[in-house]
Amino acid sequence: MPLTDQAREILSDKAIAHVGFVDDRGRPHVSAVWVDVIDGDRIEMNTALGRKKDALITEGAPVAISATRPGNDYEHVLVHGKVVERTTEGADESIDKLAKKYLNEDKYPFRQPGEQRLKVIIEPE
Amino acid sequence: MPLTDQAREILSDKAIAHVGFVDDRGRPHVSAVWVDVIDGDRIEMNTALGRKKDALITEGAPVAISATRPGNDYEHVLVHGKVVERTTEGADESIDKLAKKYLNEDKYPFRQPGEQRLKVIIEPE
Repeated sequence: MPLTDQAREILSDKAIAHVGFVDDRGRPHVSAVWVDVIDGDRIEMNTALGRKKDALITEGAPVAISATRPGNDYEHVLVHGKVVERTTEGADESIDKLAKKYLNEDKYPFRQPGEQRLKVIIEPE
Repeated sequence: MPLTDQAREILSDKAIAHVGFVDDRGRPHVSAVWVDVIDGDRIEMNTALGRKKDALITEGAPVAISATRPGNDYEHVLVHGKVVERTTEGADESIDKLAKKYLNEDKYPFRQPGEQRLKVIIEPE
């Protein structure tokens, strides 16, 4: 399903996305993450392997993404979707690309020693 | 369980709270709402009866509240908790109090004709 123009615009901006998941005990979890819109309608996020939220981000998992427009808390979008890809491949390039978008830095500056990044792709539905 | 000082501070500020729920089909949902801290450690939110999210906010329901500090996207809190109260009683006063906090208006200015408000209290755990 395509994103609305408003959702595409806000998620292409520097909005922090609050991504809701359900854990294996059926409880809600929300992660605040950087996102980008790719291929027009898919949402890319990035996390580190080993964080609690990674266990919840399995392929096919339903997610809900909530964000407000930077500078205007009263313009809000909510996107329901599912995880269609979850991979370490290209994940370092992906976090660097997000650092460029959000911080205008060529390299992600918060990388921890030994940390492995995970790229997650979400498709709206 | 008490809130951390940081969570109490951010949720007492004008932060928009992204509240994650699980719906009756086991899918995640996230609402962006106004909140306030009451009694030191409990979180008050307010919604309108009849909105989709109300169906999910039952007493005892687990929730996760994600928020960033106003003016600093990189200071983030996540609070897990459960709904301990859900009532129309005092809900109009509650939304007016939140309008005062967030907009410095004495009366909530977005009320719709016939709308009934719902006050929801969340206890961290």
